[in-house]
Amino acid sequence: MSTKRTIRKITGNHLEDFRLGQTFRHKGGKTVTEGLFTAFTEFTMTTNPLSKNARYARAYGYEGLVVPPGLTMLVAFSQTVEDVSENARANLEYIDMRFGAPVYAGDTIEVETKVLGVKPSSSNPKLGVVHVQSMARKSVGERNEAVVMTWQRKVQVWKRDESKRVDEGEIEPDEVPCELWLPSLQPARDYASMAHLSSHDTYFEDFEPGTRIEHWRGRTMTTEHIHLTAILDNTSQVHCNQHMIDLNPKQYVGGKLIIFGGIPFTLCLGLSCPDVHDNSLGDVVYKTGRHTAPLFAGDTVFAATEILGKHELPGRPDLGVLSTRLLGHKFEQAQGAAASDEAPAGYKRTQIFELEREIVVKRRSYYA
Amino acid sequence: MSTKRTIRKITGNHLEDFRLGQTFRHKGGKTVTEGLFTAFTEFTMTTNPLSKNARYARAYGYEGLVVPPGLTMLVAFSQTVEDVSENARANLEYIDMRFGAPVYAGDTIEVETKVLGVKPSSSNPKLGVVHVQSMARKSVGERNEAVVMTWQRKVQVWKRDESKRVDEGEIEPDEVPCELWLPSLQPARDYASMAHLSSHDTYFEDFEPGTRIEHWRGRTMTTEHIHLTAILDNTSQVHCNQHMIDLNPKQYVGGKLIIFGGIPFTLCLGLSCPDVHDNSLGDVVYKTGRHTAPLFAGDTVFAATEILGKHELPGRPDLGVLSTRLLGHKFEQAQGAAASDEAPAGYKRTQIFELEREIVVKRRSYYA
Amino acid sequence: MSTKRTIRKITGNHLEDFRLGQTFRHKGGKTVTEGLFTAFTEFTMTTNPLSKNARYARAYGYEGLVVPPGLTMLVAFSQTVEDVSENARANLEYIDMRFGAPVYAGDTIEVETKVLGVKPSSSNPKLGVVHVQSMARKSVGERNEAVVMTWQRKVQVWKRDESKRVDEGEIEPDEVPCELWLPSLQPARDYASMAHLSSHDTYFEDFEPGTRIEHWRGRTMTTEHIHLTAILDNTSQVHCNQHMIDLNPKQYVGGKLIIFGGIPFTLCLGLSCPDVHDNSLGDVVYKTGRHTAPLFAGDTVFAATEILGKHELPGRPDLGVLSTRLLGHKFEQAQGAAASDEAPAGYKRTQIFELEREIVVKRRSYYA
Repeated sequence: MSTKRTIRKITGNHLEDFRLGQTFRHKGGKTVTEGLFTAFTEFTMTTNPLSKNARYARAYGYEGLVVPPGLTMLVAFSQTVEDVSENARANLEYIDMRFGAPVYAGDTIEVETKVLGVKPSSSNPKLGVVHVQSMARKSVGERNEAVVMTWQRKVQVWKRDESKRVDEGEIEPDEVPCELWLPSLQPARDYASMAHLSSHDTYFEDFEPGTRIEHWRGRTMTTEHIHLTAILDNTSQVHCNQHMIDLNPKQYVGGKLIIFGGIPFTLCLGLSCPDVHDNSLGDVVYKTGRHTAPLFAGDTVFAATEILGKHELPGRPDLGVLSTRLLGHKFEQAQGAAASDEAPAGYKRTQIFELEREIVVKRRSYYA
Repeated sequence: MSTKRTIRKITGNHLEDFRLGQTFRHKGGKTVTEGLFTAFTEFTMTTNPLSKNARYARAYGYEGLVVPPGLTMLVAFSQTVEDVSENARANLEYIDMRFGAPVYAGDTIEVETKVLGVKPSSSNPKLGVVHVQSMARKSVGERNEAVVMTWQRKVQVWKRDESKRVDEGEIEPDEVPCELWLPSLQPARDYASMAHLSSHDTYFEDFEPGTRIEHWRGRTMTTEHIHLTAILDNTSQVHCNQHMIDLNPKQYVGGKLIIFGGIPFTLCLGLSCPDVHDNSLGDVVYKTGRHTAPLFAGDTVFAATEILGKHELPGRPDLGVLSTRLLGHKFEQAQGAAASDEAPAGYKRTQIFELEREIVVKRRSYYA
Repeated sequence: MSTKRTIRKITGNHLEDFRLGQTFRHKGGKTVTEGLFTAFTEFTMTTNPLSKNARYARAYGYEGLVVPPGLTMLVAFSQTVEDVSENARANLEYIDMRFGAPVYAGDTIEVETKVLGVKPSSSNPKLGVVHVQSMARKSVGERNEAVVMTWQRKVQVWKRDESKRVDEGEIEPDEVPCELWLPSLQPARDYASMAHLSSHDTYFEDFEPGTRIEHWRGRTMTTEHIHLTAILDNTSQVHCNQHMIDLNPKQYVGGKLIIFGGIPFTLCLGLSCPDVHDNSLGDVVYKTGRHTAPLFAGDTVFAATEILGKHELPGRPDLGVLSTRLLGHKFEQAQGAAASDEAPAGYKRTQIFELEREIVVKRRSYYA
């Protein structure tokens, strides 16, 4: 072939490309197969029987195994990466992340995103912050659909051409109706006969505000993160393109492939499950969340949960709402450090993730 | 949050927690998704068309692809880990492991375990042996269930408080009805038209007691074992928590993450499949089995099978029962070692696994 | 057991075992589970909604998520490995690889292969080339079947016994009817309402012969390749048996496990997808293809596509056929190398794969 022209496409948007109020209807969409369900649900070591035991899930009124909120989040979030954050430096904050209809294997999720704010950095002309609001729907039957999730996020995005004008400003978020679907209490159902399938000490009555729970299990990450990220359609190159890093290691945190934040996000949820949400019927909202340190292959992830508060769920005496803070951490070597409540001798505890999280929890008096 | 108290839950039981005759109804349960089916069935390189070719499986009278016995075992066994062996030092022996109803993708498995024996170590006050009997059922329709597997095992468990009394003793195992389900011979079925789908030389007529078969293929393990173990719900920390190992490497075999024994168990089954059970309709019983050396990422697993005996299967002239011993091994460098039948020059052969195994095998005269 | 005899089976055929005109009906067969579908489809980062979004696929007239041609090829090809290339040195060429009926999760694929040519090497008495023609079918319902793929390949195979006669010669390939199934254009369907789900600039009208597209994304391979290869039933030991390599590293390319060529084959297809076949309805034919350099864990794979030509598809004014050349490459360090169009400073570009490829692409005028 005599090549007449060569094209090097640039994918994703840069700071100057975003327009206030603009809406992206993201490409692709994603059907949650049983393969994806298993890869992620089980990777996180989640223990809530809703996502592990179809007999239990059906008895509670769900159609089958329930996709855990962390996986719904990963699938929906990843749909937005190409348009919003393929050229990002960092994801700054998750805001008002709310869940709606339950998601099952076989459901197809499609997402759209509105630009709420664009703000150039005052200190670095190459950077700025984009604020977006996204909504994920699933198709129900041939013609209907249901909102499964909505959220806002702020992300630090590179500018490509410093000379270009930025559409600076901030507009109000839309009101997106998205409320957690809950199965009704079925008086004839013998819930107690299934009570052995979940933890005996994680009912609503068991939690006391002011408690901090250090979860027992840790999980060492490997280069598996490259595959886990790819199967989500997250195309950000800092997670999978070692050659790009090698060309300019100083530009990238740690000079190596960084693990996609969604991985510790879901893993921390899973590690906390046996102590916190084994008896949950779903996540209402993540008010805010952020990644506070990078994670690399070889690191071992741990989690803790703070119980912040408890409140009633109107109309549902069988359930209650638990306010929590989920904290993820790893241990890094720190020569000479003494042992403490926080870390063993010779190590310091590095927080990697935090999430303000409200969940709906069963009351023992109704279910066990 | 002002933390009023911090909880560090200890999961699993220690030697002093077990009560003779006590029964655990294990948490969770597990629905075998197509994702889990594929990850494990194909990981092991099994070649029996019952687990690879739905057309063949249905023609033989099964409902679809059959979960191989090794995966049924892994799913059922892993359900018992938290209660029985989360705080174990080693799994000592598998005893009388028998299979019943076939398992398909979509089936949900739940397990219970009875404590048959508790025995403190005479030499080490920190250790003892627990002997348990487990039974795994699957739901069939809304209301029925079927036993898919039963087994005993002995496991060496740590004591947490040396001063605590141990409920020492041994009781008789229960009689658990669990017999291998076999599809009936269908006279009108043209089995021969499918004979090319399995090995031509692994019918019942082909085996001769006293034969040892060195299986051809080897498989190098990687850190993938962490993921494979997690997706089984096996929560034992020695397989996935590198930080815990680093804090006290001398306490752990090899000072590194050890591969869960269930992985070489199934892998050896798979490696032996083309030579031994490509034409099998199922595993009757594993009379006894044990792990004889640890396995680590980087090791290459090999297998051999000894043909111990053959006997009739009453009422089924089309089938026979083969008694075998499955042996797993790896090669370790041994400076100056001469080449032998057992190992190439410079290497020694280290046995890692053995299993006494009875399988039901088709006769060529009926099926090919 | 007193061992009376030891068997070391040799699997696969050597050069002297092939007979001109002989047909292999390969063992096993393979049902494409959702687990396998996900592992591979998503591994490749393909972006065509036919394989990601069941709503889109059904609206276009498919039964559900469509197995991408690269995965159909891997499943079908791998069925032939034991008989044809378990003892191969290298796969030399893919020829006239054509696609037929669409493949869905749940379909079972079975393959047969005819020997078209056997030719001993003129320079090396231990080697020769085998030329074969394969056909893959899937079952449709209880009694019917459809051809999903046919192809020829040439493979360099080891001779085991140099003294043995080789059945040298070459015969004509069979005519295998295998034409790409295409859904009909449905005039009542609102295709435009789904146009945001695929790239806006990859319609037939957008391509200009003589264009070379350097695809943006790269993907670093890890030891995951061992698992990916095993789950395809590809049993070739050079991809998974490190011990075998260690015993004789000089015999093997690079002295380490080599990545199965099917992996970069599908990965390059996926990396090129957003720029080339996001709006394709299928692959017609791969006229020829070959691997030009080995790939190892740690390498990062990139791809480029040359647009060779465009032509009409008789009877389908809504579609066109695009002739392309897909090229895969990696970058290797080359001290002192200046930056060029081909590679950054200090690196050279090593081509690893090429494939002449015709695909059917939607016209914007009908679909957007």
